[in-house]
Amino acid sequence: MPKCRVLVVGTGGIGAMSAYALEQGGLAEVTAVMRSNYDAVAKHGIDIDSVLWGQVSSWRPTAISKVVPDVSKADIAPFDYILVTTKNIPDVSPTVADIIAPAVTPGKTAIVLSQNGINIERPLLARFPSNPLISSVAYTGATETAPGKIYNDDPDCQKIGAFTNQQVPQDVADAAAKSYVAIYNPDGKLDVVYDADVPKVRWRKLMYNGSFNPVSSILQMDTPRMRMSKHVIDDLIAPLMGEIRAIAKAAGVEIQENAETSVLHQDPNDTAFKPSMCQDYEKGNLMEVENLVGEPLREADRFGVPAPTLRIIYGIMKGLQLKAKERKGLWKAEFSPENPYK
Amino acid sequence: MPKCRVLVVGTGGIGAMSAYALEQGGLAEVTAVMRSNYDAVAKHGIDIDSVLWGQVSSWRPTAISKVVPDVSKADIAPFDYILVTTKNIPDVSPTVADIIAPAVTPGKTAIVLSQNGINIERPLLARFPSNPLISSVAYTGATETAPGKIYNDDPDCQKIGAFTNQQVPQDVADAAAKSYVAIYNPDGKLDVVYDADVPKVRWRKLMYNGSFNPVSSILQMDTPRMRMSKHVIDDLIAPLMGEIRAIAKAAGVEIQENAETSVLHQDPNDTAFKPSMCQDYEKGNLMEVENLVGEPLREADRFGVPAPTLRIIYGIMKGLQLKAKERKGLWKAEFSPENPYK
Repeated sequence: MPKCRVLVVGTGGIGAMSAYALEQGGLAEVTAVMRSNYDAVAKHGIDIDSVLWGQVSSWRPTAISKVVPDVSKADIAPFDYILVTTKNIPDVSPTVADIIAPAVTPGKTAIVLSQNGINIERPLLARFPSNPLISSVAYTGATETAPGKIYNDDPDCQKIGAFTNQQVPQDVADAAAKSYVAIYNPDGKLDVVYDADVPKVRWRKLMYNGSFNPVSSILQMDTPRMRMSKHVIDDLIAPLMGEIRAIAKAAGVEIQENAETSVLHQDPNDTAFKPSMCQDYEKGNLMEVENLVGEPLREADRFGVPAPTLRIIYGIMKGLQLKAKERKGLWKAEFSPENPYK
Repeated sequence: MPKCRVLVVGTGGIGAMSAYALEQGGLAEVTAVMRSNYDAVAKHGIDIDSVLWGQVSSWRPTAISKVVPDVSKADIAPFDYILVTTKNIPDVSPTVADIIAPAVTPGKTAIVLSQNGINIERPLLARFPSNPLISSVAYTGATETAPGKIYNDDPDCQKIGAFTNQQVPQDVADAAAKSYVAIYNPDGKLDVVYDADVPKVRWRKLMYNGSFNPVSSILQMDTPRMRMSKHVIDDLIAPLMGEIRAIAKAAGVEIQENAETSVLHQDPNDTAFKPSMCQDYEKGNLMEVENLVGEPLREADRFGVPAPTLRIIYGIMKGLQLKAKERKGLWKAEFSPENPYK
């Protein structure tokens, strides 16, 4: 049986660890799309320092590519799966759908979105209606510390299932998700599992990502200090979690009872850990504001669930995102004596 | 008639301009308390570049002092007025009352608070029940650009009146406020006027200070960009102004109809002006969070007025203030493996 062809788009920490795991399983051959780290990896391969896999030196996936391959060309075979681990910034072009489009074979390629937040599948359902769409929610801890150098401090942990409301039959999408898990984790050694309840998995992770991520960015504060202050939890994090729970419930998802307690205990207390969105903000990067904050708020409005905290936090995050867009040349301030606000 | 003795505490931009104006009027002799700028002023005097007074070189008030004079000592005459232009940070010691206490002669000295926000008089009413308390709300633009160098770009503009609910008879307090205006502005050339409706004056200024100040600090954004973005006004500034108006109304103050429009047009649009609280935050200074944000919110709660935006903004500002306190050594983060949040 020929190996599955998997394209990994976004080969940072999570992408590199997934590429490695997929090839270790023996059932997949990975093409990794690399941009900033292409030259380093072409020359030296990837070095991995992993709590799970140990020290790995100069590893190379089957193929690397500087661009997303164009499968309309005769010499490129179609991909069975595209794993997307890029950040998801729908308020900026190109979007995820734009980026992967050249590599998608209609009716064949299953698209795995290893990204956080709510409603991330919607633009892809619209753009690729004949392709199964798979959700991966990862709790893996992995960062690229330098081009081609990966530090993996929490073992691979993913919950994988098919998104719903697809135009492809749900059993086909479910089967694609199960096959992906089987390819990724063929002997069941990894904590990478099939979970059919994708909405529940995604809303559950949002309890952290929709609360600690934006608040830490706004305060530029690590999560132990947020807990030490107590008021940051009481005034901001707890209300946000309460609102997210209520919105999820209105959307038909009952989040586990102990989720708030788990979220408050999930980070270490003895190191000044800052969530990824805060790290992005401090680096001047664009942030995943829409899928972590904007979409939950829009769901709240759709269901008529009060979300006063989320609403203000979203307003602030859009302001911070505007600054990031300006730094990236995606927005320009135009000063004039006229008041620009009507 | 001997001149009035005025002690000016906090001789930065506004304090220096007030000291100068008071002595120019010919009816006051000023003792200026100086800390960081004492040596510079002792040596060279104060240089003023003023839109109102022109270029003033090496000006010296009647006296300067490194400390607040102790009037219990036999050789120090009592003060008729103490003008306080320091920042007001009641969440940190020493408070304004602590700072001025040595210079207050009970039953005699009138205390003029040239500071922003709501309920700033309360700790002083409690501490100095026999002293008239006077409110000054200043729209003067003045900054100390270097020790003893003052840049005054907006002409002196103050609304002055007595606080209410004093234990001294209100007519005595009102008379003290009118006398202060008469001493400050003896020939009526300055826009420094008596206004009996202190609550209205203070709430009106809060429309700006309770909205643009905290939001600009949180976003670290100048006010023209906030207006350019439009959403920062619609999502944050406008709701805050609406809540402040409603709280004021519940407190018996009808803010002028056009206040929102005025506030949105009060800053220049062609320079990247950041409000003072934002400048303080970016310098790592403590901020006037309690009187500009916390007290209005507590008034909202007292009157049962919904203030969801102010509540979240206050939660965030307390978090930013905690960082400033940590930088100043007023709070210490204690890291341990234990979760500090119960």
